[in-house]
Amino acid sequence: MLINMKGLIAATYAPMHQDTSLNLGVIPKYAEFLKGNGVKGAFINGSTGDFASLSIAERKQITSAWGENKTSELFVIDHVGHTSLDEAKELARHAADKVDGIAALAPYYFRLSNIHKLVEYCKEIAACAPNIPFFYYHIPVLTGANFNMVEFLELATPQIPNLAGIKFTNNNLIDYKYSKEFNNGSANILFGFDEVFLSSLPFGADGWVGSTYNHLAPLYLAIVEAFNNNDHKLAADLQQKSMKFVDVLNAKGGFNGAAKSFMKALGVDLGPSRFPHTTLTDAQIEEAKTELDALEVTSYLGKV
Amino acid sequence: MLINMKGLIAATYAPMHQDTSLNLGVIPKYAEFLKGNGVKGAFINGSTGDFASLSIAERKQITSAWGENKTSELFVIDHVGHTSLDEAKELARHAADKVDGIAALAPYYFRLSNIHKLVEYCKEIAACAPNIPFFYYHIPVLTGANFNMVEFLELATPQIPNLAGIKFTNNNLIDYKYSKEFNNGSANILFGFDEVFLSSLPFGADGWVGSTYNHLAPLYLAIVEAFNNNDHKLAADLQQKSMKFVDVLNAKGGFNGAAKSFMKALGVDLGPSRFPHTTLTDAQIEEAKTELDALEVTSYLGKV
Amino acid sequence: MLINMKGLIAATYAPMHQDTSLNLGVIPKYAEFLKGNGVKGAFINGSTGDFASLSIAERKQITSAWGENKTSELFVIDHVGHTSLDEAKELARHAADKVDGIAALAPYYFRLSNIHKLVEYCKEIAACAPNIPFFYYHIPVLTGANFNMVEFLELATPQIPNLAGIKFTNNNLIDYKYSKEFNNGSANILFGFDEVFLSSLPFGADGWVGSTYNHLAPLYLAIVEAFNNNDHKLAADLQQKSMKFVDVLNAKGGFNGAAKSFMKALGVDLGPSRFPHTTLTDAQIEEAKTELDALEVTSYLGKV
Amino acid sequence: MLINMKGLIAATYAPMHQDTSLNLGVIPKYAEFLKGNGVKGAFINGSTGDFASLSIAERKQITSAWGENKTSELFVIDHVGHTSLDEAKELARHAADKVDGIAALAPYYFRLSNIHKLVEYCKEIAACAPNIPFFYYHIPVLTGANFNMVEFLELATPQIPNLAGIKFTNNNLIDYKYSKEFNNGSANILFGFDEVFLSSLPFGADGWVGSTYNHLAPLYLAIVEAFNNNDHKLAADLQQKSMKFVDVLNAKGGFNGAAKSFMKALGVDLGPSRFPHTTLTDAQIEEAKTELDALEVTSYLGKV
Repeated sequence: MLINMKGLIAATYAPMHQDTSLNLGVIPKYAEFLKGNGVKGAFINGSTGDFASLSIAERKQITSAWGENKTSELFVIDHVGHTSLDEAKELARHAADKVDGIAALAPYYFRLSNIHKLVEYCKEIAACAPNIPFFYYHIPVLTGANFNMVEFLELATPQIPNLAGIKFTNNNLIDYKYSKEFNNGSANILFGFDEVFLSSLPFGADGWVGSTYNHLAPLYLAIVEAFNNNDHKLAADLQQKSMKFVDVLNAKGGFNGAAKSFMKALGVDLGPSRFPHTTLTDAQIEEAKTELDALEVTSYLGKV
Repeated sequence: MLINMKGLIAATYAPMHQDTSLNLGVIPKYAEFLKGNGVKGAFINGSTGDFASLSIAERKQITSAWGENKTSELFVIDHVGHTSLDEAKELARHAADKVDGIAALAPYYFRLSNIHKLVEYCKEIAACAPNIPFFYYHIPVLTGANFNMVEFLELATPQIPNLAGIKFTNNNLIDYKYSKEFNNGSANILFGFDEVFLSSLPFGADGWVGSTYNHLAPLYLAIVEAFNNNDHKLAADLQQKSMKFVDVLNAKGGFNGAAKSFMKALGVDLGPSRFPHTTLTDAQIEEAKTELDALEVTSYLGKV
Repeated sequence: MLINMKGLIAATYAPMHQDTSLNLGVIPKYAEFLKGNGVKGAFINGSTGDFASLSIAERKQITSAWGENKTSELFVIDHVGHTSLDEAKELARHAADKVDGIAALAPYYFRLSNIHKLVEYCKEIAACAPNIPFFYYHIPVLTGANFNMVEFLELATPQIPNLAGIKFTNNNLIDYKYSKEFNNGSANILFGFDEVFLSSLPFGADGWVGSTYNHLAPLYLAIVEAFNNNDHKLAADLQQKSMKFVDVLNAKGGFNGAAKSFMKALGVDLGPSRFPHTTLTDAQIEEAKTELDALEVTSYLGKV
Repeated sequence: MLINMKGLIAATYAPMHQDTSLNLGVIPKYAEFLKGNGVKGAFINGSTGDFASLSIAERKQITSAWGENKTSELFVIDHVGHTSLDEAKELARHAADKVDGIAALAPYYFRLSNIHKLVEYCKEIAACAPNIPFFYYHIPVLTGANFNMVEFLELATPQIPNLAGIKFTNNNLIDYKYSKEFNNGSANILFGFDEVFLSSLPFGADGWVGSTYNHLAPLYLAIVEAFNNNDHKLAADLQQKSMKFVDVLNAKGGFNGAAKSFMKALGVDLGPSRFPHTTLTDAQIEEAKTELDALEVTSYLGKV
């Protein structure tokens, strides 16, 4: 059952019209863009997708729309986590026959008091989409659920038949490495920090989820190539371009909103952002382009 | 417009059937119980009301049901906060003609980067229920929005005509006192830590929101009386009973769920709790009663 | 053995010459000043005393000098805590026959991994001054040792014969109240937050340690009087004056250094502060006086 | 002036007799051991060296003893940081003609309120040993001084002529990379997390400080070799051995003390640890050896 979900996985934005209603019509173009630039999967309705600013109905619409655009060349993982287990289960049931996999992060209002609660939460959600892989989305800086992932795998694996792995967005590379080694590497541990993508390579990373894979997939593929060619200087220089990309956009009112706006510069207009994220004006987008040109980042941006 | 919302305000539970669907039918009895024990207001759909585990539709149903049970003797404040500003506004619009006031906490997934974002968020929500008071619900330990409340009042007061005050759930008594003094005491600052209720009295507190006002309103009224009679020893002894009440229930798998379950012992069966909260068995409820008897808390519990 | 260490206890500054060498000669005058304004004890070599910027030899000199100035009207508690248990023990041995009591905070570089380590640490230090009372100095915001104090009292009381109590500098009033009730009130729990001094009164506080008892002892005595007279409005207004005192000085480059400098305005020149604390110029001291005049704080300042 | 301080730098332990007094006599052997296993430098009196449990006199003795054992094959960097700037300066002056470089971490009792205070602190210390390199020791998890290191380099470089670089003990690889690139790589940024040593290699790391370079220098040299040979699987497997080494010892009452005790198994008996660190019995050391044998770590341990 567990299809091979590896490679660069873009954490996609929720496309919007100027009034911030969903613009689902752009998704086919968006999917083509990602595929065309070397992305292998789309992680939808996640943090980058601003799930917490969407209604349940909107999340379902995004799921359905991406479900229609998944192909053998672009798999789709749908984040269904919610503070309400009931809502998360409802989202999982809806997604079950539409996407290639689901993921859930831990509840983020009341924090879970122990790891057993986390396993219980994941188990109930995963059971609502039993025929597709389930990923736990580990992002303790936002959820406060700062559990050890090897321990999670040990507890959850016997209980969740469709547990596929973890979207690992934490800078504990020790836990990352141990999680990869768990049970002879049976879990798919997707690395979640694109700005230090390079640090995952020597640990054998082969799957990554992040927002800048929307914009800079060619850059990351070039990093992999340089790394495999043992050209570490080039790999590090390229990695620094991704750091600078984030810096340039972050300086324009916050990365999340600015980077969504910047997709327009790449030919895929995903519209504005919802509160509290920034939306760039066209002038600001041009400014960003100019700055990125000066930093020699531009040639690594995705192209339509 | 701003009615006098003072006194003990119970942070109410979401009543549920055994299958955790909403049991709205019990609300009239619940309202009578609160009034009969000296509670002046109900704060609904808050943290105690487990709003983050409810769907939007459920939150609206609770709002409507409580709206029908508000009277001149029991005002109702509805929490409408959400990570999605759109959802929060929708809840505010729905509540606008049904309850006596609304409240909103700060978004709790992505944290607000500055206090101006918080003012903007509150302003948009408050404008959706312009004819009733708006309270900002300050609970930084759960939202991460750790802003200074005097500064908030200074910025928000000119911009939000129906800003009534703050539900202040933070242990910074300095900020609490300054907020009370703001603009000659024009804001209604509701103290939000029932376990240290007594510490609010010398600062002139006259409004409080908390979950144990569901169970122990007679105790808190006795604390006020003792305090006003200058019988500080009695006041402190009574306050300690509220601390012990929390300890006894917290030890049974977590306070939120256990205290909801315990309402059954007082004659108002509010049913089980949703994940991740505990639900007590009848045997556990009896145990808790026995323990509270031994601690001489029982006579201060609310009665039907 | 345990003498009655109650009332206002000033956390004293380390007096310095202009070159920041110790100015021990001013201590007799400093002690007279404190006594004359209603202070009952001096807590020396603590955070206010900037112990972490002193050498061991300097700490001993301060201990000796204050030891010579303790009287039946002004007891002296010497803080001997250190990241090095050996140094702390050395300081305790030195203090043993010179002061009325000692105190120690938890090691603050490597944090203690459990409460048993804390008991062990306190036990070893207390045993070096077995004939005088020992206080644990609980200040988790600076030491990271965030243990429950009732549990500490339960574990430590049987093991430390001269354990007198706790200098409780934490805003958990629940733990404070429980600690006071421990073993029928056998422990002396000294409240450590002067800016919310008033909140301790309804819990029966009768001992307090803080830095503003250096400057504003008459104010706090007036708060107690107003509180006991059931004049809560006056008590709260006076408490707010202490908050404003802190604000005025804090705004001049940081409270610790500014408040030390300000002692000169009260007739007790304690000299400059060491790095990283600020030292006010005479002009800044005058400015502070003017601001405090406008806030009607001046009449509550201590007088020579 | 700035000699080439690169390669593996062992954060050395403070050698002790059974009564925890210093055992300086073992230092020549200790230095030979390090050199013999491929270590290039000794970082003395640091966190591993338990500086916070030593007296000033003891720190100086350690400095002198290592100063006599520095050679062209083993440079010595002495940590002189202290909460007291005066003490830190005294240590710097003492070290100035004895070692190859000094380092200082930020004050760790009162936290520095801004980065300019940090620059001022470093400047004063560095000026006390003007003829040898100065390193800022960045370890925010223990000091709370969580400043951006590129900004530090920008501010400090013009002011501190002998600023050599940073001992960078933080998992922010973005700041690490930017710091390395600062001013065309003019600063010597020593990577400080041995358990994720491998993640530093693709960023071009060429200097590292850590405690396990005491025990496992051959392992890390093998990691470098594998990495340079493009054998990433081997490199990662070796890195995991270092993680397991830490786990095995950490499970025996805490890593710091257990790893110091374990040096005896390698032929360099460094004695017991001071409070609060654990000291292993010989039986426990044997147990650890057996466990490490089973994990195939043993052949990578340093040898006398």
